[in-house]
Amino acid sequence: MHEIELTGDVLAAQERLAAEVRAKLAQYGIRAFNVMGAIGSGKTLLIERIVERLKDRIRFGAIAGDVAGSDDYERFIRLGIPAVNLNTETECHLDAHLVEHALEGLPLEEIEVLFIENVGNLVCPADFPLGVERNIVVISVTEGDDMVRKHPKIFAQTDLVVLNKLDLAELVEVDPQRIVADYKRLNPHGTIILTDAKHGRGIPEVIAALGLER
Amino acid sequence: MHEIELTGDVLAAQERLAAEVRAKLAQYGIRAFNVMGAIGSGKTLLIERIVERLKDRIRFGAIAGDVAGSDDYERFIRLGIPAVNLNTETECHLDAHLVEHALEGLPLEEIEVLFIENVGNLVCPADFPLGVERNIVVISVTEGDDMVRKHPKIFAQTDLVVLNKLDLAELVEVDPQRIVADYKRLNPHGTIILTDAKHGRGIPEVIAALGLER
Repeated sequence: MHEIELTGDVLAAQERLAAEVRAKLAQYGIRAFNVMGAIGSGKTLLIERIVERLKDRIRFGAIAGDVAGSDDYERFIRLGIPAVNLNTETECHLDAHLVEHALEGLPLEEIEVLFIENVGNLVCPADFPLGVERNIVVISVTEGDDMVRKHPKIFAQTDLVVLNKLDLAELVEVDPQRIVADYKRLNPHGTIILTDAKHGRGIPEVIAALGLER
Repeated sequence: MHEIELTGDVLAAQERLAAEVRAKLAQYGIRAFNVMGAIGSGKTLLIERIVERLKDRIRFGAIAGDVAGSDDYERFIRLGIPAVNLNTETECHLDAHLVEHALEGLPLEEIEVLFIENVGNLVCPADFPLGVERNIVVISVTEGDDMVRKHPKIFAQTDLVVLNKLDLAELVEVDPQRIVADYKRLNPHGTIILTDAKHGRGIPEVIAALGLER
């Protein structure tokens, strides 16, 4: 729930918890990515596509964050990687405390790269550091061309954006370049990669941007 | 922001504010609808389609709720109805207090039906009563077939759901009937209407469900 502004104290507490997560990940040599994004934008599919391509070479793990349900968790399990289902119930985001608990359910010594899939929305996750190496935001052209303008905070602070479902752009009459321009205006040094995760387009570029090539 | 659970006191305060909004709307004889839903699901377009069909007979007004930006507000103005832009900045939902302020910016004596478009996500808006006649949730097939399972609270408490972008269902390989079944399981007495707002399909059914036929 969301009645109280994050005060300095609360932010500091979140930063401390994030530092604990960061230390734990470092202890096990795990590179972790916080995958944020709109609901249904293709976060899970993006992770699946990356894992499918690299799982012979990299040992992956995943934390599936959702308000309720286990759909994404089951997809990770079917993918053959260790995963934890993390239901937030009423919260619209993960936080470092939840992640720290979730780590206890994973075989950390067997994981090299951990995807933490956040709860699907573009507002709340922006405020909570998770102690990861990098944050990613996934959006889709089907959400319209105004997504960046409507959520400047998360885009201004995230230097890797994936714009997915490119195959549907023409059909929904959305110009991906308008979204790219909005993002570049907010975050001139950020990287935005156009993908069609369903058909595999753009996945190698995301893999390169995450430094997962070997 | 979202650190503190809504306690009984906060909920009671929200209910009191919602009652004030309800009283004000009643004073002016305004029927108000709280349009919630995922980002990019088609909330604004649904309102546009309804207004286009009925504006010769009904005097509409709108409140455009978004974290940032004025895209939706400008669409309502282009539609020729009085509107207020309501940016929540860090909040992921509207609340009755914000709505009460927004009402001050509208010519209430000229409005018969007011659409309040909430911030786009399926988590936070569920917790805040706005004092309206009815809540509506808009989702889209492009978000995947697991939307209802992932957000049981908002669907359990909302008795009118619009499942939009039906024209894209086959392309994104989503079976709308699976979403309908999930919703009916959670909310057996609720109504779910399948629409393709872009091409006008299902709009008369939504108009009927809202009791806007004359």
